[in-house]
Amino acid sequence: MPMEPIQTESTLQALIRQFQDCRHQTEQLCAPLTPEDHVPQPTVDVSPPKWHLAHTTWFFEQFLLGPFNPEYRVYDADFAYLFNSYYNNAGKRILRPNRGLMSRPPVQEVMNYRAHVTQAVTDFISSGSADARILEVLTLGIHHEQQHQELLVYDIKYILGHQPTFPVYGEAFGLQAEKQEFSWIPMDEGIYSIGYQGNGFCYDNELARHRVFLEPFRIANKLVTNGEFMEFIASGAYSDFNLWHADGWDYLKANQLSAPLYWHRLDGQWLQYSLNGLVPVDPAAPVQHVSFYEAFAFAEWQGSRLPTEFEWEAAAGQFSWGQLWEWTGSAYLPYPGFQKAPGALGEYNGKFMINQQVLRGASVATAPDHSRNSYRNFFAPPSRWIFSGIRLANSL
Amino acid sequence: MPMEPIQTESTLQALIRQFQDCRHQTEQLCAPLTPEDHVPQPTVDVSPPKWHLAHTTWFFEQFLLGPFNPEYRVYDADFAYLFNSYYNNAGKRILRPNRGLMSRPPVQEVMNYRAHVTQAVTDFISSGSADARILEVLTLGIHHEQQHQELLVYDIKYILGHQPTFPVYGEAFGLQAEKQEFSWIPMDEGIYSIGYQGNGFCYDNELARHRVFLEPFRIANKLVTNGEFMEFIASGAYSDFNLWHADGWDYLKANQLSAPLYWHRLDGQWLQYSLNGLVPVDPAAPVQHVSFYEAFAFAEWQGSRLPTEFEWEAAAGQFSWGQLWEWTGSAYLPYPGFQKAPGALGEYNGKFMINQQVLRGASVATAPDHSRNSYRNFFAPPSRWIFSGIRLANSL
Amino acid sequence: MPMEPIQTESTLQALIRQFQDCRHQTEQLCAPLTPEDHVPQPTVDVSPPKWHLAHTTWFFEQFLLGPFNPEYRVYDADFAYLFNSYYNNAGKRILRPNRGLMSRPPVQEVMNYRAHVTQAVTDFISSGSADARILEVLTLGIHHEQQHQELLVYDIKYILGHQPTFPVYGEAFGLQAEKQEFSWIPMDEGIYSIGYQGNGFCYDNELARHRVFLEPFRIANKLVTNGEFMEFIASGAYSDFNLWHADGWDYLKANQLSAPLYWHRLDGQWLQYSLNGLVPVDPAAPVQHVSFYEAFAFAEWQGSRLPTEFEWEAAAGQFSWGQLWEWTGSAYLPYPGFQKAPGALGEYNGKFMINQQVLRGASVATAPDHSRNSYRNFFAPPSRWIFSGIRLANSL
Amino acid sequence: MPMEPIQTESTLQALIRQFQDCRHQTEQLCAPLTPEDHVPQPTVDVSPPKWHLAHTTWFFEQFLLGPFNPEYRVYDADFAYLFNSYYNNAGKRILRPNRGLMSRPPVQEVMNYRAHVTQAVTDFISSGSADARILEVLTLGIHHEQQHQELLVYDIKYILGHQPTFPVYGEAFGLQAEKQEFSWIPMDEGIYSIGYQGNGFCYDNELARHRVFLEPFRIANKLVTNGEFMEFIASGAYSDFNLWHADGWDYLKANQLSAPLYWHRLDGQWLQYSLNGLVPVDPAAPVQHVSFYEAFAFAEWQGSRLPTEFEWEAAAGQFSWGQLWEWTGSAYLPYPGFQKAPGALGEYNGKFMINQQVLRGASVATAPDHSRNSYRNFFAPPSRWIFSGIRLANSL
Repeated sequence: MPMEPIQTESTLQALIRQFQDCRHQTEQLCAPLTPEDHVPQPTVDVSPPKWHLAHTTWFFEQFLLGPFNPEYRVYDADFAYLFNSYYNNAGKRILRPNRGLMSRPPVQEVMNYRAHVTQAVTDFISSGSADARILEVLTLGIHHEQQHQELLVYDIKYILGHQPTFPVYGEAFGLQAEKQEFSWIPMDEGIYSIGYQGNGFCYDNELARHRVFLEPFRIANKLVTNGEFMEFIASGAYSDFNLWHADGWDYLKANQLSAPLYWHRLDGQWLQYSLNGLVPVDPAAPVQHVSFYEAFAFAEWQGSRLPTEFEWEAAAGQFSWGQLWEWTGSAYLPYPGFQKAPGALGEYNGKFMINQQVLRGASVATAPDHSRNSYRNFFAPPSRWIFSGIRLANSL
Repeated sequence: MPMEPIQTESTLQALIRQFQDCRHQTEQLCAPLTPEDHVPQPTVDVSPPKWHLAHTTWFFEQFLLGPFNPEYRVYDADFAYLFNSYYNNAGKRILRPNRGLMSRPPVQEVMNYRAHVTQAVTDFISSGSADARILEVLTLGIHHEQQHQELLVYDIKYILGHQPTFPVYGEAFGLQAEKQEFSWIPMDEGIYSIGYQGNGFCYDNELARHRVFLEPFRIANKLVTNGEFMEFIASGAYSDFNLWHADGWDYLKANQLSAPLYWHRLDGQWLQYSLNGLVPVDPAAPVQHVSFYEAFAFAEWQGSRLPTEFEWEAAAGQFSWGQLWEWTGSAYLPYPGFQKAPGALGEYNGKFMINQQVLRGASVATAPDHSRNSYRNFFAPPSRWIFSGIRLANSL
Repeated sequence: MPMEPIQTESTLQALIRQFQDCRHQTEQLCAPLTPEDHVPQPTVDVSPPKWHLAHTTWFFEQFLLGPFNPEYRVYDADFAYLFNSYYNNAGKRILRPNRGLMSRPPVQEVMNYRAHVTQAVTDFISSGSADARILEVLTLGIHHEQQHQELLVYDIKYILGHQPTFPVYGEAFGLQAEKQEFSWIPMDEGIYSIGYQGNGFCYDNELARHRVFLEPFRIANKLVTNGEFMEFIASGAYSDFNLWHADGWDYLKANQLSAPLYWHRLDGQWLQYSLNGLVPVDPAAPVQHVSFYEAFAFAEWQGSRLPTEFEWEAAAGQFSWGQLWEWTGSAYLPYPGFQKAPGALGEYNGKFMINQQVLRGASVATAPDHSRNSYRNFFAPPSRWIFSGIRLANSL
Repeated sequence: MPMEPIQTESTLQALIRQFQDCRHQTEQLCAPLTPEDHVPQPTVDVSPPKWHLAHTTWFFEQFLLGPFNPEYRVYDADFAYLFNSYYNNAGKRILRPNRGLMSRPPVQEVMNYRAHVTQAVTDFISSGSADARILEVLTLGIHHEQQHQELLVYDIKYILGHQPTFPVYGEAFGLQAEKQEFSWIPMDEGIYSIGYQGNGFCYDNELARHRVFLEPFRIANKLVTNGEFMEFIASGAYSDFNLWHADGWDYLKANQLSAPLYWHRLDGQWLQYSLNGLVPVDPAAPVQHVSFYEAFAFAEWQGSRLPTEFEWEAAAGQFSWGQLWEWTGSAYLPYPGFQKAPGALGEYNGKFMINQQVLRGASVATAPDHSRNSYRNFFAPPSRWIFSGIRLANSL
């Protein structure tokens, strides 16, 4: 996470404002929720909104205020136990599947906690005593909270989308049809440079920048649409084992899947839960909420394949991206020369580099300044509650 | 559930007042809770308080207003799906383990639902058009809600007692030391009549009244105390397989149990979570929150046994009872001549008559007019979150 | 397990012959098997035949030769670990679900072990130095092995019956039609004595003999037939939740059951796996391989109930029994005055007295001298691989 | 799986001899086993030896004799159900976890089946009517059986190594110390060609041959030794979460692992089960039976990393390999231009290309002509019963 030194006062003010905006934005995401909506954990991957609100706050307390501000008093000593996610270096914590059991502290108390830490960070940074290392942690904390903002949207949608009453959250995070005609973008063979280059923030997993050789390929200029995916379903693809990974097929059978997450078949029509309630599936919009297995099977059925993350990054300048994260055919592995950060922050990325698949791009739920073409998102292949889509490619 | 016909207006008014008091009491039990406390289901046996509030309301809607009041309009058609517990005859319902996922409707909406149904029942009964069958259902509904009041206390304690912060609910439902000296009450052999006798309400499982022959026995005049149970623990009883049922031993090992539920060992002292927070265990008070396995093992260790439910009922006039439900050595089985009610209400008791153990008596969480010496409570042997205790007996 | 003292030489010779016959009979049961058939454990309740052969041998080594014959040398010190079943007092043992993983020792080695122990017991007892306590253990060992003979038949049937090829074991253990016309046997109310009385062998769970009061009832003179059970199936009973315990209904759904174990529907006909291969179901023979849940549901459907074990014992002199063990409506609980034996043999019965249902009678797989009307067999309610059947009763 | 056409009679004779030798070799591997040893399936990944013997035979029947020899009569129609592994295109089959329940057919019958099919294939091929496609299937069948020969060794070791008596199989498949001094082999950056090149047999997953760019790296000239791994253990590495993947750490905890598979700590010494019984761990021999997680954690601890499969293949000419398969840091993914075979044989590789890690090299249990530097072996990261080892690398 290397950065240019931040020296001028105006830069510092900008960083503080970015921090405050970020904190505010998280709270805005939860504004349409009832206190009760903040509590459940309907599946182990989905965390209660209250937990996100508190965990992103704990992060600043644990990694910034605690180590660097000797005058800071911890807001509540129990919160480290409650709101640590997975940092073994930061001590014991409740088991992940138990996050939904914690009715206390109530939402209002978490909001007080947020206000306390937001103020403490603002004061501490504004005092001018923060050195470059501290500003790096602050910047990482902002990016960390932005990641949780996106997870918040996923988790809110999951919680509300699993109420039998399909409640409305609001007009937000919907997808638009991609208007352009479909075409293939040809890419030449050659050596390409991969990984982050620049002076801004990046995660450790985007480094070291290095070279790869790509054989010639082509890549689609737009995402697979709902209409195309309905054809895939109608063709019987969910019953044709030849299209699926063995693991994917087992996953389909065990969970009795026959359509993307949130799709419901009613009176011969496909409906989907959106944050605006239950609505008809729009054939022109990109298909969303598919697992890697479904993305792979669709590509197989269509006679194409998914791009590797290297192909994606090499070609990303030539198509628009950002409505949905795009499954790639690449496993999430360290780049040559990867160095994980020391201490707890070293647990951020490296320890997940197994049994995960890379997604590239961004989604409508991604914070505006949180995307770049070297960004490596990753989820386990069965994940469907994320804002995921499909872009096709072919070897030439 | 046979009852005397209720004919006079004053009796009807009394029943309506009983109904209203019962409804009010349920709401009072939840008054100390935050909205968030109403949501979690920390284990499958524990239902969210919100669910209890709504389910006891649905019961009147489903079995009284719906069938008998043609003018009644269902408050919300979705609620039957959300708040049916286990009545197959009353249609589909969410799976029991998913009760804690339902953040909607929020608590306030459930309170509105309660007010609506309370008023509708009051109006309907007050109109004077209710016949004896309807009043029987009303009476059953009150008793049903009283049962849920007790479960509410158990479940609230479980939810709060599993918060790492041990929050305070209030000064309520604590146990007192039983002051009397310990003594054995001898009981003669002979034929005893068992089961409900009288004109009031009783459940179908208390009938038919019938005769049993009891060999001579003796029974303790008071419950086993915390002090005695601490001796049992200190003797190494939780590690001595000879004291335990094979199932009980497996249960101990699988759950790594070494003390009653809510007990915590801190700095060489036993503390317990009470609704008033974490407090030292009082050696003079009765031991609480033990499973049938622990009750049995304690009796075995002590050289006694648990009374059968028939022995208990025969002797119940000779000792005081009511701080805790008392595990008996009897399995929950139908009496000779048992007849289950037709339709959905027939699912109330009979279908649970397997793999359950009978408890007799009442507890500090039992509604005042909800106890009688023929009352048959029942839970699965591992249950510990209930208000259960131990009374000893011996064959002579 | 009290017995008359055995004093005369001819009585001793008879006991030795009984022992040897018993040992021989166990081996005969396995004679039709291949070595491979002796190995699998297709479900946790089913033990490999090799294990039964060895375990019944270990019992004599562990409880008779080891403690009482100072000259006896253990055959193989590893075998105690391998072939102890559930006696915590006898030390560590392999986990029950792992019995089917033990390919060693091979069958022939187990047969050598058997021969060694059979000879050692014969020599030791013949030497005349065995006192009454030793002869009691010998007698218990014989009864123990007879119990395993019956389990061997169940387990062999399960292993072979789950081969896709339905192999033939031989003409054995088939059921006959019960020729008598159906009739009800009326029984008067009154005090009956229950439990073993006499000078022969009985288990500790058959004592103390004690009195019970029975209300008037009637009991069927014969078992429910396959024909009657086919009507039950045809009526849709496996889909009618009102007939089933809640636990039973869950069990049906989880295991997708719609007929007794070993029944197969082929071309509109019911076939069943018998030890003689796949054969048509005989409508006149008693229905076999039903769980307690199915027995209960059948009785419910038919408008009757199962007898209690006390009713069964009181009436047993008035009907023939012995093709199948008969599920009763009684849970397996200690009699008043029950005393378990000290040490490991005390683990024989008492620790299982929870969550089990009593069966009475005997079956075609029961050793000839191993049945009496006070005998209390017990299995968990879902058990279907046992030789179980249904006799009806009613309260009058 | 492209091959040169096989035209001459002597080439055909050589192929038939290769086939017969292969068949014989499989049987030799099982020769030291008892019939009972052929039956158990102690964990889902381990198949009974009997199953391997039959499955490799079914492969020739299903894919060669059935489709191509119209005169061939299937040996036993049930066997396809019993001995298909995972080919959905070849019809239904028993569930994988149930392979250990099949006591029938007995081993001798499987040997008869083998002889029948070996003869039928020999006759059919010798008749000269087999075209190139048939010879391709024959060749694939030989390679398939060679793969199962290696699995047989793994599975036999697992079955015998989990007998509490640690029986001896024989002097076979032991490892030697690698005598050479440790050194790093430096490798230049550049474009390397990866994948099979030549006229012999290869699997579809080794194609298309393609170019990769490698940054400069170095790779060890020998495998990590037991002595080094004992230092890793002694340093507390199994308790240091910073060394492990999150998944790996969970796996350690769930399975309570603290050493490689088959290692036992006895009186302060490390012993390991070998096919020759329980023997002391040789510090000079390569460490064996480690999961990918352990290989990764060791490299992390040592300050190195695992090579990618591309680095391995590029450098493989410069070190000796073949005692153990070597975990690489590469996920098992398709090469650019990968084409899976049509029909059932297309299920051979492609559908497993997710959640698996590549191993390169060969082991002492690999058939002599079954290794090449483009060979891509793959197993799930937790796999430990395979013959796996560790070679280190570093970025430069």
